[in-house]
Amino acid sequence: MRKILVVGIGAGNPEHLTVQAVNALNRADVLFIPDKGERKSELAELRREICDRFVTNPASRRVEFAVPVRARPTGSYRQTVDDWHAAIAEIYERLILGEIGEDGCGAFLIWGDPSLYDSALRILERVTRRGNVEFALEVIPGITAIQALAAGHKMALNRIGDPFLVTTGRRLTEDGMPDNAGTAIVLLDGQQAFLSVADKSATIHWGAYLGTPDEILLSGRLGDVEEEIVRTREEARWRHGWIMDTYLLRKAGN
Amino acid sequence: MRKILVVGIGAGNPEHLTVQAVNALNRADVLFIPDKGERKSELAELRREICDRFVTNPASRRVEFAVPVRARPTGSYRQTVDDWHAAIAEIYERLILGEIGEDGCGAFLIWGDPSLYDSALRILERVTRRGNVEFALEVIPGITAIQALAAGHKMALNRIGDPFLVTTGRRLTEDGMPDNAGTAIVLLDGQQAFLSVADKSATIHWGAYLGTPDEILLSGRLGDVEEEIVRTREEARWRHGWIMDTYLLRKAGN
Repeated sequence: MRKILVVGIGAGNPEHLTVQAVNALNRADVLFIPDKGERKSELAELRREICDRFVTNPASRRVEFAVPVRARPTGSYRQTVDDWHAAIAEIYERLILGEIGEDGCGAFLIWGDPSLYDSALRILERVTRRGNVEFALEVIPGITAIQALAAGHKMALNRIGDPFLVTTGRRLTEDGMPDNAGTAIVLLDGQQAFLSVADKSATIHWGAYLGTPDEILLSGRLGDVEEEIVRTREEARWRHGWIMDTYLLRKAGN
Repeated sequence: MRKILVVGIGAGNPEHLTVQAVNALNRADVLFIPDKGERKSELAELRREICDRFVTNPASRRVEFAVPVRARPTGSYRQTVDDWHAAIAEIYERLILGEIGEDGCGAFLIWGDPSLYDSALRILERVTRRGNVEFALEVIPGITAIQALAAGHKMALNRIGDPFLVTTGRRLTEDGMPDNAGTAIVLLDGQQAFLSVADKSATIHWGAYLGTPDEILLSGRLGDVEEEIVRTREEARWRHGWIMDTYLLRKAGN
């Protein structure tokens, strides 16, 4: 049977790779490298650097594949994502059937951790449901941007004994700060949703390009630093051509 | 100035160590190994194995230190924790002053990630506030039990576009399932708080001794599997003398 490894490769620092991930990459005959277009070419370069540095298996091949761009949501967000996953599942199936031998092993390289706001596992579940190819699946965890953020700010994600909510920019804007947790951690925020938070006495710990030499960290009382974060974010995005950022919001007091 | 590294060493699999963590352990002159008593001696053995396997710096020394046991909360939980941290801060200060030279480097080894329900960073902040020793601090993230749980079950932590809450057994019992997220992830649960969840149609993904050869995984509809988890947990705890477990609860539907 074919074997598929879904390997978390960390948040941007090549040294985020775990020993388990390095060994997994070297077990694979084929490394599948998604190409999401030129906009994030620094990320593609970084992934190449990770392979060059850690993959020592001479039999290993790299296969780049284009990932279709997700349509702008017309109907529901969930339906748009569903259609998009269906399209990618066909690509995955073709790759698995065409590039991996019947007893071979292929690895998908995933930024961060495959369990955190990533679709590879859901897409592979679809491939299985389509019924055209069987494979055994193994998942290798990786360091996430959330952990790189906390390490950069040298802070805990939680207050003592208190829950924290991990959410998206979209949902922070809709829901506001959580009632059941002192801390909200926000990912996938293309719209600077922190500006919509009413409680300006909250503190924000913000980071961009986490784990890379270009890492930027800013923190302070939301009301005091939100404009500085907007300016810094805009300037960095212009300079790099792209930005990936994440942040933690914490209510004032303990 | 002295340097302190706070190093996440993963959830139980020695191969969870990142390249960054391996390099950090080898930069340190002194590795500080907490001794939390004999009850979890398998964990102490595992930490020793990690050091033996990855620390190649011949100048590195290991210093074991006893961690006081936290009192049972009499007044508030927070006050009890506060007193406990104050006692540990004195121990940390003594270790830093007594075991690390003025330009030396010491590393604290932390299970999982120093940012997730761990007190080392808060305690080191206290040491700084006490004003008797100065040091530069660096934090190295590590794979958490949450990530090992998700990898074991080959699943995402979040539903598509949906938040998740990370909470404790104590808070799950008090608060019930969150209204603002489809998923709750529960850590530090000594009391099997999942039994208190009213919605038995939720699914549970449970894991113990995550990342180790003794890993146990169970999952299903809460109402169907909760008794099996209680039995399995009790039996494993009896056999090992200790247990560390964590789980994910997800509301039915998408």
